[in-house]
Amino acid sequence: MSAGRIRIGVVAPGGRIEPALAEKLTALAQAQFKDRAPELLFHPQCFLSSGHFAGNDKTRAEAFLDVANDANFDALWFARGGYGSARLAERVLAGLTDAARHKTYLGYSDAGSMLAALYTRGFQNLAHGPMAADLTRDGGEQAVCRALAYLVDRAPETLEPSVSPDHPSAAFNIMILSHLIGTPLQPDLTGHVLMLEEVGEYMYRVDRSLQHIVSNADIRKTAGIRLGRWSPIPPNDPDFGQTEEEVIRHWCAVSGIPYLGRADIGHDIHNKIVPFGRFKPRAAA
Amino acid sequence: MSAGRIRIGVVAPGGRIEPALAEKLTALAQAQFKDRAPELLFHPQCFLSSGHFAGNDKTRAEAFLDVANDANFDALWFARGGYGSARLAERVLAGLTDAARHKTYLGYSDAGSMLAALYTRGFQNLAHGPMAADLTRDGGEQAVCRALAYLVDRAPETLEPSVSPDHPSAAFNIMILSHLIGTPLQPDLTGHVLMLEEVGEYMYRVDRSLQHIVSNADIRKTAGIRLGRWSPIPPNDPDFGQTEEEVIRHWCAVSGIPYLGRADIGHDIHNKIVPFGRFKPRAAA
Repeated sequence: MSAGRIRIGVVAPGGRIEPALAEKLTALAQAQFKDRAPELLFHPQCFLSSGHFAGNDKTRAEAFLDVANDANFDALWFARGGYGSARLAERVLAGLTDAARHKTYLGYSDAGSMLAALYTRGFQNLAHGPMAADLTRDGGEQAVCRALAYLVDRAPETLEPSVSPDHPSAAFNIMILSHLIGTPLQPDLTGHVLMLEEVGEYMYRVDRSLQHIVSNADIRKTAGIRLGRWSPIPPNDPDFGQTEEEVIRHWCAVSGIPYLGRADIGHDIHNKIVPFGRFKPRAAA
Repeated sequence: MSAGRIRIGVVAPGGRIEPALAEKLTALAQAQFKDRAPELLFHPQCFLSSGHFAGNDKTRAEAFLDVANDANFDALWFARGGYGSARLAERVLAGLTDAARHKTYLGYSDAGSMLAALYTRGFQNLAHGPMAADLTRDGGEQAVCRALAYLVDRAPETLEPSVSPDHPSAAFNIMILSHLIGTPLQPDLTGHVLMLEEVGEYMYRVDRSLQHIVSNADIRKTAGIRLGRWSPIPPNDPDFGQTEEEVIRHWCAVSGIPYLGRADIGHDIHNKIVPFGRFKPRAAA
């Protein structure tokens, strides 16, 4: 851990990013944070391409470990989602060293598979929030600056409003969490406020995945569910007949999990930070 | 159970069908089986509509129980898939009587959720195979006649070629099985040959669901996996870089589950019958 400017290593366990994005991000961080700007180091793996992925499984896992196990990095920032984290989880878990425990990991969507995997190993500084590739969204500067403000300062205004030091939280994309259920990577969310978001999925599919998630006995031990944004939802044919909030309320009622209202997270520029577990301000982090 | 013509009750736990389809099926069964033609009784629920579903959850569950619990029916035939079986499972399991155990259940795709639920309760005559709505496919007569020949005669030529009285089998749609993992409806497939099929899903999604399925410790107790058809697969962007058989071989290798080759099942008119458990010829059924 460095005392002055923090060092952030960027890796891409799912899809690749363009080198131009890395340059834009570095310039933006400099402009925004001036002499406190974090050093952003993009692992060359971010720019590789192997079919669907930013390099093959071995290459992506090694890149992840290069950053995770390097004590000179304060944080590992996921470059983007897509698909690919889960494929690396077993290899990454087997290769982690103690240095990996002393840094912050930030990402969402597909990255949730890796955050879950690390959470099963007791990692303390995992967070669901914007990734490097969010800069490509309209107005994406605010998303990536929020991510950096969290990584640099643990700035409280970056947090999802219900996050608190008083109770543990976690956040997941619905499809990603559904695919962790019943596997060794399913995190223990007992007592957590669980926030769920989705993007671009038909209502019937999200309904199906929510039933799956809440049918798991361990998920029923969460303190409650908050609903992030599900946008955009493609039109169902025929119309599904229920709104997204009716659907989540239905599955909470069926499973006996308290429904706690909305969460300010989603696949958009307003996506707030949700630390896994209890939020720890910078001094205590 | 009746001695002469068998009686088949048709219900629609997922999407609805048109009354015209029922008429066409009845005429086809008559033409094909003459004086041995099964009596096809379509529960009026098949034609209802409630948003995405053929009636609301309560109505569909009651229709299922009307047929399942009626000793005058020899078989319950799923009208079609879509989505909806899983939503009924808990209600149906709670309402089943002993009469329900003495009939055959035939369906696939979404119906797999209900077949799994019944299999967890030790039901003996469950099978993965064509449904009434397959008649709407080009050449669909052969699919529905195969289903009827199985229900009427347990005709051996209707069976998927690897099915045998010597080992247990089971077949599922990949998405459907993925959504059962880690829930009370996950069937015990220890020692089974597990056949998997898919339709209309991107490769990355099927890859993700296969990883999910084979990561479950109990699924690793299957005797092996056979790959049914995955068609059509929409183009991945970028190209996924692996064929469907490479993907299944990968996940079998990772999980230590033997890959046993292809299976003659899928969302098409060639979909053969896979009884759950060991195949029992009619005399022994």
